[in-house]
Amino acid sequence: MAHAAERLVEVWRGDFCESVHHGHVAVWHADSGLIWGLGDVDGVILPRSSSKMIQALPLIESGAADAHGLTQEQLAISCASHQGAAVHTDLVTRWLADLNLSEADLRCGVQWPSDEAARDGMICAHCGPDQRHNNCSGKHSGFLTLTKHLKAGPEYVDPDHPVQQAVRAAWEDVTDETTPGYGIDGCSAPNFASSLKGFARAMAMYAAAVEGADARQTAMVRLRNAMMAHPHLVAGEGRSCTKLMRVMGNRAAIKTGAEAVFAAIIPERRIGIALKIADGTTRASEAAITQILGALGVIDPADPVALSYTTGPIRNWRKLETGRYRVTPALGDWRP
Amino acid sequence: MAHAAERLVEVWRGDFCESVHHGHVAVWHADSGLIWGLGDVDGVILPRSSSKMIQALPLIESGAADAHGLTQEQLAISCASHQGAAVHTDLVTRWLADLNLSEADLRCGVQWPSDEAARDGMICAHCGPDQRHNNCSGKHSGFLTLTKHLKAGPEYVDPDHPVQQAVRAAWEDVTDETTPGYGIDGCSAPNFASSLKGFARAMAMYAAAVEGADARQTAMVRLRNAMMAHPHLVAGEGRSCTKLMRVMGNRAAIKTGAEAVFAAIIPERRIGIALKIADGTTRASEAAITQILGALGVIDPADPVALSYTTGPIRNWRKLETGRYRVTPALGDWRP
Repeated sequence: MAHAAERLVEVWRGDFCESVHHGHVAVWHADSGLIWGLGDVDGVILPRSSSKMIQALPLIESGAADAHGLTQEQLAISCASHQGAAVHTDLVTRWLADLNLSEADLRCGVQWPSDEAARDGMICAHCGPDQRHNNCSGKHSGFLTLTKHLKAGPEYVDPDHPVQQAVRAAWEDVTDETTPGYGIDGCSAPNFASSLKGFARAMAMYAAAVEGADARQTAMVRLRNAMMAHPHLVAGEGRSCTKLMRVMGNRAAIKTGAEAVFAAIIPERRIGIALKIADGTTRASEAAITQILGALGVIDPADPVALSYTTGPIRNWRKLETGRYRVTPALGDWRP
Repeated sequence: MAHAAERLVEVWRGDFCESVHHGHVAVWHADSGLIWGLGDVDGVILPRSSSKMIQALPLIESGAADAHGLTQEQLAISCASHQGAAVHTDLVTRWLADLNLSEADLRCGVQWPSDEAARDGMICAHCGPDQRHNNCSGKHSGFLTLTKHLKAGPEYVDPDHPVQQAVRAAWEDVTDETTPGYGIDGCSAPNFASSLKGFARAMAMYAAAVEGADARQTAMVRLRNAMMAHPHLVAGEGRSCTKLMRVMGNRAAIKTGAEAVFAAIIPERRIGIALKIADGTTRASEAAITQILGALGVIDPADPVALSYTTGPIRNWRKLETGRYRVTPALGDWRP
């Protein structure tokens, strides 16, 4: 990358800075473009799960969502990295049934749920998870809905499949870039690459979208509103997306992605945020996005949930405080 | 730190370098001192669990280990970050009983075991772990043995307790430094800081130690031999310390630590290694230590276990290969 990653978050233990995280930040205003950047905003990233609201655009724009009468809950979980709790898998089970499809039609793979109750219940019943428990099963249910609507073949994660071609077209539109390619994601779907600033631009489009203006803006509003209305469907209890969106009310839609990507949509400010921690560590992407959301006034920096991500404390097995997070001045001193 | 961390390990997904890890490496020869350094070898680190063989020195040197007839297995688990499998907790249970003590005398805190069989058994029995399952319970059993031998008080993790004072003295001896302080570790014991090269020097002393030469060298030989003889007690099935030590036979003792520290003792070369990934990510410390062990000829770089750490592959929920690790030339081109 042209510009080195910037030092963003430190992890302290007692008097020692034990670990450090560098990364890249892009804050984009729908009217004025890039209003703040740290590190390399032109660098190419794989946005991973933080881009699920882009992957869901064709589901709505094609007419598939309305043709199948999808609810706001279904739109929310189509943008989710859920943790396989009953509230998530029940929704996916009903969705698949509505499509006259089954778990076997998913192509996301089998993942143990991170939800403890769901996991423990299966362990004690001596059974295991299936593809519905995969954190991406909502997104894949959306892909299957579009597949059916398009009367396309079953291998919907193939990069040449009409569903993924539609995703690519939407992706290139909203990032205003020709994607340089894709990586295969944890759920086996292609994940298209873009510059960090292109991804932030896309998030700003969601922020500024107006319902009824056109099909794209209407789809963007429906997806961002679905995420904000159902924080527990987008991730799950105890997870940062859920906890932070709950604290913010309906003021921002945010989404984490693997390898420490984080995206945010802030309608009231017409701003989109994209950030990537260079080493892929989620504790740092959570600290960084929370810090920026605080600077933008959509979360109170002194809120206990916000503080838990920006400063900790870090506790050990006896609940003793052993350390703290610190955002660096480069990140912490920014004001819009 | 005076020198910036060096780029050591990359994580690739398809054609994209998705994440990068920087760090510091010190390779110390018992006779000639520092023979290779990357990044800041003078920088201060908290060696965390990678230093347990130093924390166990007073247990032997005081005569406590022999007075209590400790076995090689007990010495191995005193240096362990075990995963709470039955093989680990049974050993700790017997050890505590031999001391006429109980689980309540430990001060490491309660941790769920990462061993699946142990964890699942407790979940289905509707019971939970206790302090014996803490990954440090072997080290703490050693601390309790020394406490009893010294007729000291029960709060053995207090930095002013005779046990921790003895650890500090040994620490400063083997690193040849006055420690600048300590952090409180996950297990509540103080973890003394040292320079990376001081820690590597200590590991080289273990490598060059000769049984019978003096009390310290004898203790060092007993601890390194215990680790090499019982790789499954030092960590557990599926873990890097266990897997790599098994492949290497009795040619190296290695130990990981939280926040991506790794230490290695190579007797046949009279060499000690200490490395720290700046961002604290274990996948990178595992890749780096494996690469260096390969360069030093104590593991075959083409061994499947070695390759799994240095190159991957990274697979997704459907077992598809999605990416690879790559060590950088700075790390990969070094030859002793």
